[in-house]
Amino acid sequence: MKNMTRSLTFLALIGAAAPPPSLAGFTLKEISPESAACAACHKKESPVIYAQWGSSKHFRANVGCFECHTANKEDPDAYEHYGQYISTIASPKDCARCHEKEVQEFNESHHAKGARILGSLDNTLAEVVEGNRAFKTTAFPDGVSAAAASGCWQCHGAEVKVLQNGRLDPATWPNTGIGRINPDGTEGSCTACHSRHAFSAAQARTPDTCGKCHMGPDHPQIEIYNESKHGIAYRANVDKMNLDNPKWIVGEDYAAAPTCATCHMSATKDQATTHDVGMRISWNNRPEISIRPEIADAKLGLPGKDITWETRRANMINVCINCHNENYVKAFYVQYDALIDLYHGKFAEPGLALYQAAKPLLAGPQFSSKLDFIWYEIWHHEGRRARHGVSMMGPDYTHWHGTYEVAKHFYSEYIPELQELAERHMDSASADKKAAAEALHQLIEATLNHDNHKWYLNKMDPAEKARREQQVKEFQKRYGK
Amino acid sequence: MKNMTRSLTFLALIGAAAPPPSLAGFTLKEISPESAACAACHKKESPVIYAQWGSSKHFRANVGCFECHTANKEDPDAYEHYGQYISTIASPKDCARCHEKEVQEFNESHHAKGARILGSLDNTLAEVVEGNRAFKTTAFPDGVSAAAASGCWQCHGAEVKVLQNGRLDPATWPNTGIGRINPDGTEGSCTACHSRHAFSAAQARTPDTCGKCHMGPDHPQIEIYNESKHGIAYRANVDKMNLDNPKWIVGEDYAAAPTCATCHMSATKDQATTHDVGMRISWNNRPEISIRPEIADAKLGLPGKDITWETRRANMINVCINCHNENYVKAFYVQYDALIDLYHGKFAEPGLALYQAAKPLLAGPQFSSKLDFIWYEIWHHEGRRARHGVSMMGPDYTHWHGTYEVAKHFYSEYIPELQELAERHMDSASADKKAAAEALHQLIEATLNHDNHKWYLNKMDPAEKARREQQVKEFQKRYGK
Amino acid sequence: MKNMTRSLTFLALIGAAAPPPSLAGFTLKEISPESAACAACHKKESPVIYAQWGSSKHFRANVGCFECHTANKEDPDAYEHYGQYISTIASPKDCARCHEKEVQEFNESHHAKGARILGSLDNTLAEVVEGNRAFKTTAFPDGVSAAAASGCWQCHGAEVKVLQNGRLDPATWPNTGIGRINPDGTEGSCTACHSRHAFSAAQARTPDTCGKCHMGPDHPQIEIYNESKHGIAYRANVDKMNLDNPKWIVGEDYAAAPTCATCHMSATKDQATTHDVGMRISWNNRPEISIRPEIADAKLGLPGKDITWETRRANMINVCINCHNENYVKAFYVQYDALIDLYHGKFAEPGLALYQAAKPLLAGPQFSSKLDFIWYEIWHHEGRRARHGVSMMGPDYTHWHGTYEVAKHFYSEYIPELQELAERHMDSASADKKAAAEALHQLIEATLNHDNHKWYLNKMDPAEKARREQQVKEFQKRYGK
Repeated sequence: MKNMTRSLTFLALIGAAAPPPSLAGFTLKEISPESAACAACHKKESPVIYAQWGSSKHFRANVGCFECHTANKEDPDAYEHYGQYISTIASPKDCARCHEKEVQEFNESHHAKGARILGSLDNTLAEVVEGNRAFKTTAFPDGVSAAAASGCWQCHGAEVKVLQNGRLDPATWPNTGIGRINPDGTEGSCTACHSRHAFSAAQARTPDTCGKCHMGPDHPQIEIYNESKHGIAYRANVDKMNLDNPKWIVGEDYAAAPTCATCHMSATKDQATTHDVGMRISWNNRPEISIRPEIADAKLGLPGKDITWETRRANMINVCINCHNENYVKAFYVQYDALIDLYHGKFAEPGLALYQAAKPLLAGPQFSSKLDFIWYEIWHHEGRRARHGVSMMGPDYTHWHGTYEVAKHFYSEYIPELQELAERHMDSASADKKAAAEALHQLIEATLNHDNHKWYLNKMDPAEKARREQQVKEFQKRYGK
Repeated sequence: MKNMTRSLTFLALIGAAAPPPSLAGFTLKEISPESAACAACHKKESPVIYAQWGSSKHFRANVGCFECHTANKEDPDAYEHYGQYISTIASPKDCARCHEKEVQEFNESHHAKGARILGSLDNTLAEVVEGNRAFKTTAFPDGVSAAAASGCWQCHGAEVKVLQNGRLDPATWPNTGIGRINPDGTEGSCTACHSRHAFSAAQARTPDTCGKCHMGPDHPQIEIYNESKHGIAYRANVDKMNLDNPKWIVGEDYAAAPTCATCHMSATKDQATTHDVGMRISWNNRPEISIRPEIADAKLGLPGKDITWETRRANMINVCINCHNENYVKAFYVQYDALIDLYHGKFAEPGLALYQAAKPLLAGPQFSSKLDFIWYEIWHHEGRRARHGVSMMGPDYTHWHGTYEVAKHFYSEYIPELQELAERHMDSASADKKAAAEALHQLIEATLNHDNHKWYLNKMDPAEKARREQQVKEFQKRYGK
Repeated sequence: MKNMTRSLTFLALIGAAAPPPSLAGFTLKEISPESAACAACHKKESPVIYAQWGSSKHFRANVGCFECHTANKEDPDAYEHYGQYISTIASPKDCARCHEKEVQEFNESHHAKGARILGSLDNTLAEVVEGNRAFKTTAFPDGVSAAAASGCWQCHGAEVKVLQNGRLDPATWPNTGIGRINPDGTEGSCTACHSRHAFSAAQARTPDTCGKCHMGPDHPQIEIYNESKHGIAYRANVDKMNLDNPKWIVGEDYAAAPTCATCHMSATKDQATTHDVGMRISWNNRPEISIRPEIADAKLGLPGKDITWETRRANMINVCINCHNENYVKAFYVQYDALIDLYHGKFAEPGLALYQAAKPLLAGPQFSSKLDFIWYEIWHHEGRRARHGVSMMGPDYTHWHGTYEVAKHFYSEYIPELQELAERHMDSASADKKAAAEALHQLIEATLNHDNHKWYLNKMDPAEKARREQQVKEFQKRYGK
C-alpha cells in the first residue's frame, strides 16, 4: 500500500515537527496572582464561567483567566481592566502558546479559510438578495446585512472589528465562526468546537459539536450521521465511548462507535490526531462538480496541495479497517464513487452546461429568476445531500433527500423552465438572443435524447421498456394493486 | 440598570406572594385508604402507572391516586368508581391545591390561552382546508375536523367535552395540549410538560419536553436549540446537569449547559422560577410583524400587559450573565434586533402591504389561491424560522431555513405571482378591479424600486455593483472557478 | 375481549413452537480452536471487531468468529481463508442455528420481503428517473443504478451477487438492508438491527436503530417518535430503561418509557417478544389508500393473512394498557381512525380518481410530468406523514408536515394542474383525448362541488360561513389584529 505509506510518513512528520510549548511547560506551579484576582470577582459575577473553568484541564494546569486573555497594551483589541491589559478574544495565536501543533494543523485546513466567502454566491444571497444595509454600527456606518452577521458569519466566521477601548463591533461579535478573522490577524476560533470555558475535548469529540454548522438543507452531515449505523451505535453506546480520555485511539480506548472526530481527526494506532480535517477525505463535494481535495487546497494556497486524494483515502481506510475488513471498505468506496459518477454524468455536467447556455437569455442579475434558484438548489442543496449521504452511508439522504430531489427538480422544474426560456426568445428581435435561444434549444434536445434521459421522451429501448413493464406487472400482482 | 431592578422587584413580589399550600402541608403522614385501594388493583392492571408513581415525589409525600383524581359528585366529569367519585382529568385546579404559585403563574401566561385559536388562520386551515366534518362523536353530532383533533388540539389544547358518567368525548380526549379547556372550566394541562405519572421536574427541564410542540416548519425551537452551542453543550453534558435536583439554580446547581427551562423559566440566584414563560422574552415573533410581548398580553387581558419588553429583556440578561459577560449579551441583542429589523423592513412590511393590495383581486376564499399559501409560508413558516433562529443563535435556521427561504419565495414566487395577478385584471370590466390592479401594479413597482429591492431590477448603485463584481472575481480566482 | 384472547392464544402457540437450538445448547464449553485462530490475528488486524465481540453475549457463550462464518466448501459464497472455508455474510440461516424462533418470526414479516421492490414506483424512480447504467461491476456488466445501490437497497436489501472466490459484488455489498437476499437464498439481514459485532439487544431496542430506515420525508417514524410523549420520556430517562436486561418486559423490567420495540416487538406480561413487526399494527399506511395488514400479508403469501387487524389491534392494546387505561386507548383509536377516514374521504380517494382520469391525457411516461410528482408526494410523502403522525401521537407531523401539506398541494398545485390539463385537451383533434378531457373536467367539477371541497368555490353553507366570519372577528379582536 504505497499511498498509505506516504500518508503515514507525512503524518508522522507533522507529529515530529511539534515543538515544545512556548510557555514553561503545560503546567504552571500555581495560579498566577493576576488570574486569582480575576477569579475573585468573576466567581460571583459569572459563576458558570468560573465553574466551567474549574472543570477544565486548564484549572489543573493553573492556566487561568489571565494566561489566555492577557494582551499587550499596543494590541489592537487590548483594554485595561482593573489594572491589567486584556483582550476579549483569545485567538488561535493565544492558544498556540501551549497548543502549537494543533493550531498549525488547523491553519493548514479549509476550516481556517472559512471566512473567505466574500464574493461567493452564498455571500451575494446574504448581502444582496436576503439582506440590506439597515444594520449600521460604528464599524459599518454604511450598513451591513444582518442576514450575513447572524447567518453566514456565525459558522464561517466574521472579520472582527475593534472599536474604542478594545470594544468589539456588535455586527462582528459575538462570533465563534470557524474561520473568524481576529483582531490580531489570525484566522480561526478554537472555541468554535472547544466551547468556553471548559474547553472539553470530550464535548469537541461529540458529533453534535460538528452539527453546529454541518447541518441543514445544504450540508446535512449531522443528520446523515444520525441516520447511519455509526450514529446509531454512538447514541446507543455513548457511555462506553470513553470520550474524556486524554488518549483516545480507536480500537485501544474505545470500540463502541465512531464519531465525526474518529474518522476525520482523531488518532488510530498508526496515525496521529490532526486538526486539519481534510486529510482523510477523497472528494470535496462542495462545488457543482465534486473535485479532489488537493485541487481545492492548491487554490487556497494550502500545503495540502501536495497530498493527493489517494493518500487521503488511504488515511481514511486506515481508520475504517479498525472496524471493517479491507474488502468491505474498498467495496464501499466503489459504491461511493459510483454515486458521484451518476450525479456528475446525469445531472451536474449537463445541468451546468444548460445553465451556461441559458445565461445569455437571463436578463436580470443572478437570483432574480426562478431558474437561478432551481439550478442552485439542485447542486448546492440536493446534489450535496446525495453526495454527502453516500459518503457517510445514510441511504435516506442519498436517495430521498438527495437523488430523488435532484431528479424531481431536474425533470419537473429545470427542463420545463429552460424550454420555456428558449421558446420565449426563439423569435427575438436581437440576433444574439435568437442564436442563444436556438443553441439552448439544441442543447436541451441533445441532453434529453442522451441515454441518461431518453426515458423522459418515451424513447427507452423497447426491450428494456418491455422488461420493466413486466416487472411492474409482477410487482402489482405481488402487492395486489 | 433601572429595568433590571424593576424586574427583580416584580419577580421577588411574585415569589413572596406564594401562599402556603391549601392541603395540610405537602406531605401526608401516610397513604390514604382510598389511594391504597386504588393501588391495590392498579398495580396489577396498570403496572407502569404504579411504577412511575412509585418513582415520583408524590409517592414520598403520600400523595396517591385519590388525592389528585378525587371529585365531588356534582363535578361535571365525576363518576363513581368502586365507591369513590373521581374524575379522569386532574386539572390545574386540582394541582393548585398543593402547587398554587405555579398554577397562578401559568394562568397568567400565553400557554394558558393556547386553546383560543378558534377563528385563527391556522384554525381555518385545520377545519376547512384540511378538514371536513366526517368525525362525528356524541359531542359533535354534526362532525368536527379530525385534522384539528389530532393536529392543532394536541398542542394547543382541546375543549374537553364530557359525556355520560364522566366519560370524555374521544374527539377531545386523549389530549394534553398546553391550553386545554377542562371540564371544570380551568385552562391548561400540567401534564403537557410534567408527564404522568412520575411528574418529573427533571423530565420537564429537558429541552425535548418543550420540543413536543415547539418544533417543525413554523416554530422549530427544538431544532434551533439542538443546533446552538447551548444544545451542543447540553447533549454532551447531560450527566452533569443535575436535572433532578430540587433546587436548580444556574451557576449554583449546574454549570454545564442551559436548557429551554434555564433561560425561560428556571431560577437564577436573583430570580425565582416562573411558570409564566413570557417573562423573559422581548419579542413575540408569532405574527407577520413581530410585536412586543406586553402588547400581546394586553390583547389577551393578561397581567403581563404591565411588564414592558425592556423589563423582560433585563430578566433574560440576568440569566445570560451567569455564562456570558454583559458586553457579549448586549452585542447579541444588537444582532437579534438587527435581524428583526431586516425581516420587517425588507420583507414583512412590504409583503403585508402587497398582500393587502392584492386582496381585492383574489376572488375566492383565503387559501383557495396559491398566493395565499406563498405569503402565509413567508411569514408564518420561514419568517418565523429566521426570527426564532437568531433569537437562539442557530445560524442555519436564521439563514438557510430562514432568510434564504423568505427571499427565495419573495422574489421567485410572490412577486411574479403578484405581477401576474395585477396584469390579469389590468383591463378588467369592473372599474374596482381595474383600479385595484393598477394600485397593486404601482405598489409592486414602488417596492421593487426601493433600495431594498432594486438589485432585482438590475438597478444596483453602479459603484456597489462594480465593487461586488470585483469581489466575485477575486473569489472565483481564490477558489479557481 | 374476544380478539385479545385469540391473539394471545396465537402468540402463545408461536412461543410454544420454538424448538431447542440446533447447536448443543447456546453455550459452548470452550472457544473452538478455529475461532481462537481467527481471534489471534484479528485482535491485531481488526481490534474493534475483536473488542465488540468481547463485549457480546456470544463471547460468554464461546460463540466465536468461526461458529458464525463457517461455510461448506460448496456454498456459493464460501472461500478458503487460512485453511478454513468461511463466508463473509452470516445469513439468517446461520443465525437460526441458535436463534430459530426469532428467524422464523422474522421470515413471516414484511421486513423479510423488503427487497421485493423491483417493479415498484420507487424502483422506477431509482433506476430510471434518478439513475442510469453507468455503475458497471462484474455482476452487472450492463450497469446498474448507483442510486438504487446506495439508496433503496441499503434499507430494503440488495440481492447479493457472488463473484469468484466468495468475493461479493460491490454493487450489492456492503449491504445490511432488512430484506437482503443472501447468497444462500435466505431473506434478511439480522445485522440490520443487531449491529456487528456486539449484536447488542440493548442497541436494537433503541429507537435510533429503527430510525436507520424509518425516517425522512416519506416515513418519518423516528422524527414522530422523538416528537411524541413516548420519545420525550425515553430521551429523559434512557438510564432507567434497563435496556440491556435479558428479560425486558414492560411494567416488570422497565417503566420509564416505551421504545419502538416496546410497542411493536417486545414482551408484555401476556405476550411473548415477536420478530414479526406487523403483529400489532391495525393499518398498513404505505399505499395511497391505507389497507388492513392481513390484506397486505395475503398478497405476499405470509401467514399473517389469517391474523385480522382486530386481533393485531388487541395485541397493541395489550401493550398500551400497561401505561394507559382502556378508555384512553380506545379513545385514541377513535382519533386515529378518524384521521385515516378524513385523509381517505377528502384527499386519497378523490385524488386517486382524478389521477386515473388524468392518465389518458398524460403523454409521457410516469414522472415525466409535474403532475406525477405532485400526486406522488401527496400520498407517498405527505399523506403518509399525516397517517404515521397520528398513529404515534406526533401532532406536528399529523398536521404541519401532514394534512397541511396534503391540502396545500391538493388545492394550490394538483387541482390547478389538472384543470390546465383538461383545458389543454378540450379541443383536441383526437376524439379520445377530447372525451378524456371532458371526463376529467367533469370529475374536477364534481370533486370541488362536494361538501368536502365546496369552500374552495366559495360555496360554503351561508350559515357556517357567517359563523366562521364571526369567529375570525372575535379572534382578531382577541389578538388585536
